Amino acid sequence: MSKFIRRSQKVGLPPGSLVHLGEKRAEKIKISLIDYNENNVLEKEIEKVDECFPFKDKPSITWINIDGLHCIEVIEKLGEYFGVHPLLLEDIVNTGQRPKIEDFESYLFMVVKMFSYNDHAQKIQSEQFSLILGQTFVISFQEEEGDVFNPVRERIRNAKGRIRKMGADYLAYSLLDALVDEYFVILEKIAENIEDLEDALIINQSTITLQEIHNLKREMIYLRKSVWPLREVVNNLERGESALLQKSTRIYFRDLYDHTIQVIDSIEVFRDLLSGMLDLYLSSISNRMNEVMKVLTIFASIFIPLTFIAGVYGMNFKYLPELEWAWEYPAIWVIMIIITIFMLFYFRKKKWL
Amino acid sequence: MSKFIRRSQKVGLPPGSLVHLGEKRAEKIKISLIDYNENNVLEKEIEKVDECFPFKDKPSITWINIDGLHCIEVIEKLGEYFGVHPLLLEDIVNTGQRPKIEDFESYLFMVVKMFSYNDHAQKIQSEQFSLILGQTFVISFQEEEGDVFNPVRERIRNAKGRIRKMGADYLAYSLLDALVDEYFVILEKIAENIEDLEDALIINQSTITLQEIHNLKREMIYLRKSVWPLREVVNNLERGESALLQKSTRIYFRDLYDHTIQVIDSIEVFRDLLSGMLDLYLSSISNRMNEVMKVLTIFASIFIPLTFIAGVYGMNFKYLPELEWAWEYPAIWVIMIIITIFMLFYFRKKKWL
Amino acid sequence: MSKFIRRSQKVGLPPGSLVHLGEKRAEKIKISLIDYNENNVLEKEIEKVDECFPFKDKPSITWINIDGLHCIEVIEKLGEYFGVHPLLLEDIVNTGQRPKIEDFESYLFMVVKMFSYNDHAQKIQSEQFSLILGQTFVISFQEEEGDVFNPVRERIRNAKGRIRKMGADYLAYSLLDALVDEYFVILEKIAENIEDLEDALIINQSTITLQEIHNLKREMIYLRKSVWPLREVVNNLERGESALLQKSTRIYFRDLYDHTIQVIDSIEVFRDLLSGMLDLYLSSISNRMNEVMKVLTIFASIFIPLTFIAGVYGMNFKYLPELEWAWEYPAIWVIMIIITIFMLFYFRKKKWL
Amino acid sequence: MSKFIRRSQKVGLPPGSLVHLGEKRAEKIKISLIDYNENNVLEKEIEKVDECFPFKDKPSITWINIDGLHCIEVIEKLGEYFGVHPLLLEDIVNTGQRPKIEDFESYLFMVVKMFSYNDHAQKIQSEQFSLILGQTFVISFQEEEGDVFNPVRERIRNAKGRIRKMGADYLAYSLLDALVDEYFVILEKIAENIEDLEDALIINQSTITLQEIHNLKREMIYLRKSVWPLREVVNNLERGESALLQKSTRIYFRDLYDHTIQVIDSIEVFRDLLSGMLDLYLSSISNRMNEVMKVLTIFASIFIPLTFIAGVYGMNFKYLPELEWAWEYPAIWVIMIIITIFMLFYFRKKKWL
Amino acid sequence: MSKFIRRSQKVGLPPGSLVHLGEKRAEKIKISLIDYNENNVLEKEIEKVDECFPFKDKPSITWINIDGLHCIEVIEKLGEYFGVHPLLLEDIVNTGQRPKIEDFESYLFMVVKMFSYNDHAQKIQSEQFSLILGQTFVISFQEEEGDVFNPVRERIRNAKGRIRKMGADYLAYSLLDALVDEYFVILEKIAENIEDLEDALIINQSTITLQEIHNLKREMIYLRKSVWPLREVVNNLERGESALLQKSTRIYFRDLYDHTIQVIDSIEVFRDLLSGMLDLYLSSISNRMNEVMKVLTIFASIFIPLTFIAGVYGMNFKYLPELEWAWEYPAIWVIMIIITIFMLFYFRKKKWL
Repeated sequence: MSKFIRRSQKVGLPPGSLVHLGEKRAEKIKISLIDYNENNVLEKEIEKVDECFPFKDKPSITWINIDGLHCIEVIEKLGEYFGVHPLLLEDIVNTGQRPKIEDFESYLFMVVKMFSYNDHAQKIQSEQFSLILGQTFVISFQEEEGDVFNPVRERIRNAKGRIRKMGADYLAYSLLDALVDEYFVILEKIAENIEDLEDALIINQSTITLQEIHNLKREMIYLRKSVWPLREVVNNLERGESALLQKSTRIYFRDLYDHTIQVIDSIEVFRDLLSGMLDLYLSSISNRMNEVMKVLTIFASIFIPLTFIAGVYGMNFKYLPELEWAWEYPAIWVIMIIITIFMLFYFRKKKWL
Repeated sequence: MSKFIRRSQKVGLPPGSLVHLGEKRAEKIKISLIDYNENNVLEKEIEKVDECFPFKDKPSITWINIDGLHCIEVIEKLGEYFGVHPLLLEDIVNTGQRPKIEDFESYLFMVVKMFSYNDHAQKIQSEQFSLILGQTFVISFQEEEGDVFNPVRERIRNAKGRIRKMGADYLAYSLLDALVDEYFVILEKIAENIEDLEDALIINQSTITLQEIHNLKREMIYLRKSVWPLREVVNNLERGESALLQKSTRIYFRDLYDHTIQVIDSIEVFRDLLSGMLDLYLSSISNRMNEVMKVLTIFASIFIPLTFIAGVYGMNFKYLPELEWAWEYPAIWVIMIIITIFMLFYFRKKKWL
Repeated sequence: MSKFIRRSQKVGLPPGSLVHLGEKRAEKIKISLIDYNENNVLEKEIEKVDECFPFKDKPSITWINIDGLHCIEVIEKLGEYFGVHPLLLEDIVNTGQRPKIEDFESYLFMVVKMFSYNDHAQKIQSEQFSLILGQTFVISFQEEEGDVFNPVRERIRNAKGRIRKMGADYLAYSLLDALVDEYFVILEKIAENIEDLEDALIINQSTITLQEIHNLKREMIYLRKSVWPLREVVNNLERGESALLQKSTRIYFRDLYDHTIQVIDSIEVFRDLLSGMLDLYLSSISNRMNEVMKVLTIFASIFIPLTFIAGVYGMNFKYLPELEWAWEYPAIWVIMIIITIFMLFYFRKKKWL
Repeated sequence: MSKFIRRSQKVGLPPGSLVHLGEKRAEKIKISLIDYNENNVLEKEIEKVDECFPFKDKPSITWINIDGLHCIEVIEKLGEYFGVHPLLLEDIVNTGQRPKIEDFESYLFMVVKMFSYNDHAQKIQSEQFSLILGQTFVISFQEEEGDVFNPVRERIRNAKGRIRKMGADYLAYSLLDALVDEYFVILEKIAENIEDLEDALIINQSTITLQEIHNLKREMIYLRKSVWPLREVVNNLERGESALLQKSTRIYFRDLYDHTIQVIDSIEVFRDLLSGMLDLYLSSISNRMNEVMKVLTIFASIFIPLTFIAGVYGMNFKYLPELEWAWEYPAIWVIMIIITIFMLFYFRKKKWL
Repeated sequence: MSKFIRRSQKVGLPPGSLVHLGEKRAEKIKISLIDYNENNVLEKEIEKVDECFPFKDKPSITWINIDGLHCIEVIEKLGEYFGVHPLLLEDIVNTGQRPKIEDFESYLFMVVKMFSYNDHAQKIQSEQFSLILGQTFVISFQEEEGDVFNPVRERIRNAKGRIRKMGADYLAYSLLDALVDEYFVILEKIAENIEDLEDALIINQSTITLQEIHNLKREMIYLRKSVWPLREVVNNLERGESALLQKSTRIYFRDLYDHTIQVIDSIEVFRDLLSGMLDLYLSSISNRMNEVMKVLTIFASIFIPLTFIAGVYGMNFKYLPELEWAWEYPAIWVIMIIITIFMLFYFRKKKWL
């Protein structure tokens, strides 16, 4: 999830030049359209971008979703017809954007990050999600097919909840809400990982590596980078200064804002926990080194004196009287055992044993 | 106290869908009602939620307390009758809320965390406490039976203090005050733990483990996460912008605000103390390793040279003149004792002994 | 100076209940009164609290000082007569207060911490000091007899400075000023301790323990906790929004504010210095361990090879030709000396010697 | 990129004295002029500074670029004719400036840092870039020839994009935009370095040194120092309070502001990553030390007891019965092998093997 | 530069009492006066303070400079005549002041720190510099003779720059500017020290001690403590709210403000660099310890097994068949060489050699 987007290919181009920055993830651009009002729903796959144009001024709510950003002409054409500023189109195709919101009088533009947990690859994936909110339409742009919005589509199809009765701003809210809900799924995965690591640290400290803590930390850094500006985006929506946002939707954005703050809180808590785990880990290394040192010291301190004694009576002096004494050998053993007991007693007193 | 609430089961539901998130702690939902004015008190256990409805518009103050959040229909019914927004009901049953306050014109909604120390299990327990303050009623929601409000109930029953003479806002204040008072009990427990750990660190450093410091630290992280937003809640109440708050109660909320700040101050002080203890702990590990190393070095440095000397005269050379000398053996002992004394002297000078 | 005040005995009492929290430090409550105007001074010890009441409405300035907080009835009576809100009386007797100021129209209430250095016990003592400033009176509450205000009393008695010509607000200023001046005395003591520790760290690092750094750090934490809110108190007074503060006293409060900032600055500098000393200390531990390791390594690396050589010629093989050679023994010595010189040279090159 | 600019040669001069501070990088001052409107472009190299003067009041847009700051007279003359305040001229030639913007009514003055990656020397180079924006002219000052503005020149020459249709403020924007784009190139280089270091840390930890992490960190410190104030500069332009900035250019400056924030975000992320890598590095040192200690301890603990046993039977006692036993020698081997196996088993249990 | 000023001798005095706090640095108080307008300059040494008084109301600009603060009566007399508030006089003679500015209607009062590098003693010296700015006069107070203002005096004498044409506020600016310029000289010295230390750390890590890093760090702490509030002082001047500051001088104060920010930026960068160096230093200690451990381990692990083998064949068993074998001795050598080669190979594989 952490790739730094290479922008160098864009250096030198005039502002507003559309160049797709980021990996090309979708094979083919895919445009799908849902048009609905309280009574009817029309859903269709668009082949040629012009098919969308009639929906622009219809009173019903229209959601145009584009998967794949590499097909510059389509986006340009769409943007031109819907009156989107070229700099925004540039932001849409340039996937290294920071989450932000911009208020043009006739439409609102937002960029946020969409995270999803890929169960197959066991990792977090991130995608840039841009959204243009007009009076009666929402246009959304994703990097590739597959998203977290199927429940929203279901609710539109089945007229579940109040989505069919409300305006385009509520649709935008629903999409952002689905997106932030997915953040909680990601946070749960991370919470599980952290708990596993903590258990591992306590039970059997050698099996985990600092690498795992570091990786989690890095994920938190990137998540944080995406969520903090998201907060500003939602806060802006909550204040509802744009004429495109009806007063009745405002409470929903406030709710969304609360969720975003909860995400941020959790991220900060996880950061604190991870840094506590780092301390645990580092001190566990030191403790283990202590352990090793003690074993060495105990062995060496007991046997080095004994070996010295054995060495003394291994000397070949002609005049070494003890060698002749009959009881010297067992006496030496007694002395050596006494030394050993004394040493063990000393180490016990020092709580090394 | 630290479980991360799993929200994933809620992903995809339309906003305002009531799903109880969190462990189901109470077997049966329990509704109790206290209705009082300056002269009378009525206390009863409610079987069917409809029994509460008549109290809504009575001029006397009514406190409805619900223990247990898993019984969605009851909460929905109650919410509908008292005109509570569905999004708030969702917040009530979703126990992972961040403390917050929301001001609807006809009622105030608050969510805070209620902590209590379970003497039996020797640990801190946390519960979500939601409160709806209307003109003449307070509705409170708890996750399970048993709370910190018995003294408040007593005061209502016995008309102790001014509670019976004042409005619903004073009741809300009394509940929050009882709740924050309990925070001080928790802080005392933590203060005791910290003092015990500090004493242990100083007297006998090996008996405590970093694990204990880490656990305390983690508790501080969660406590802090709950108390910082509580501060905003109380601050909001203190400013008294809602028409539901009478001017005379404002000074009580100011007092409550001071208490909250005291809690925060203490938490910050504890955090500083704990991080200081971590330094103490880590340096004590290093010091002990130093100690071990010195013992090893002293033993090795004294006996290795002596063993070498013994080894020399253990060689079997035919022409090794010293072996023939009559006084060589005692001379060797003298040399070895001199070396030992010299080494001990050297280590003493280095302050290792 | 650091005891955490146990509030648990108060849990459950209605707000405004007077219970003395903190150690009972004074045996007997002591009330002393000074009443003065430009021409006269009256000083007397009060036996019964009612004796103070006539002074309330006299145009002369009256300073009533109460030492000892455990005698609840006296404080209650006094508070009632002077019209003090019960919640404030509660704050006065509850010694765990955070420094704060509260502006009631007819009087100002302040709580601050009074520090003093006990030369006898060689430690910092802290006491809660509460002050009620009315139009013509100041009532102050202390935990025990003995304070830092004797110079103020002298100035009143001798009409030194402008104190006798000015109002109750100047008296309040004089008391706070005397109190903050004492902070500088405490800071000097701490500065001396820090300098001593620094010298000890540089000259003879083993004599000080991390414990001492830790204790100083802890004192800074508590001092800081008391001084930061004091700053807000004085700042509030400096802004002089209350009608009780005359414009001419404002410049004195500004001066006091500067002093408070100086105290805070010094505390922050001391914190930085202490954390620098911690680094010094920890690295000195590592350096000493390095030292120990080097001694061990030098001894072991020189003598282990020599002992091996001696061991070789201590073998009892029948066919070990060198044993027969006449010059082998001195040759072995030459070899061993060469090895030793070579090793010493090697360690010197590595800068271990 | 990190030289601290020596200002001491300037000490004592009156304010507004022009002295070039910084290395003299260009041999000869070089002045180039581009004058354009929607239809025509005039490009010329200026020999004498007076040649620029006629362009000042022409309605077409004029860009005067000066490479080299050491030729004080030229800059003074230019500044005088274009009415630039002497203090600004001082800022232009003093290359240690902090990025800033100043709004004089008739012109805007900006100083920023221009970074470029020198592929040849493999390092980041920084240069001070000053810009004066008037109604119809832009004057820019660089320390040496060679810059990142060639694409802008191309666009002017070829009327690509909207540059030829817009005013001097758009030209200023284009220059800043080109400059900030280059920051992304620098960030990419740093991102690559960080990734390389991270891989090196994981695979083969001994090949990288802390020195490399430290160097990257230092580069981040300097980059950060330049970019944070740049943010204020661009923010100031975005707010567009000056009459020199047309409303239509404002959206471009907003876009530029977003880019600056992205740069800052990346720098902060890199800082976090680098501090994480430091932890990784330090713990990898400790781990390796642990490894070394274990090898030593295993060898010593196995062979020291065995050597002791051999020493015992190397003693020369006359009455040492075991020496006579026929099966003692193989028995001793058996004992020694058992001890070895036991020790290996013990170390395996401790997970050291 | 770091002495903590002892204030305890002042405790208990009424506010506004003049007591000189700080070392007495000047033997004799020295008063020098410069009076100038566009055409004339008068410079004289004042013996009796009354000589200054006639200059107070002259339209020409008068700069009175006092070196030495211990002569209380002179300062009191001067202050009284020029109408300076006693509390300010107290601040002037009390050298532990925090930099600040105070705006009395008829004059501005500033206290800042003046740093200078004493080449002789090779250390930074700091002095308190107070300045009173009136309509036509500047009075400055220094602790001792010798300052950084000689260039300013020269400019006044020679009418260099615009100083003679402008008012007292420009004189005040010139003095502050000279003072801040000197900060850059100090920063250069520190930058040199930091670079030297960094080089030392890289080339030959054992020659520098943590003590040097710590000393630099401490100097940064004190410098920072002085410069941060200076920033507020200059910012206050830049806003130019006082009637004493003419609009034309404002741009100079803005320039001065920029310089102050540059000083602060540099200090922050130096702090970051120093903390990076601390990491470098600590890890270099660990690396060296690793190095020592490896040498020990290599020696011990090679020779301990060999010594064991020699020990085996040094045993005196009667039935030790190998001793009789003719080729055993050379065979043993071969075995020992093989073991050695194997061990060396193993250590090489572990990259210890």
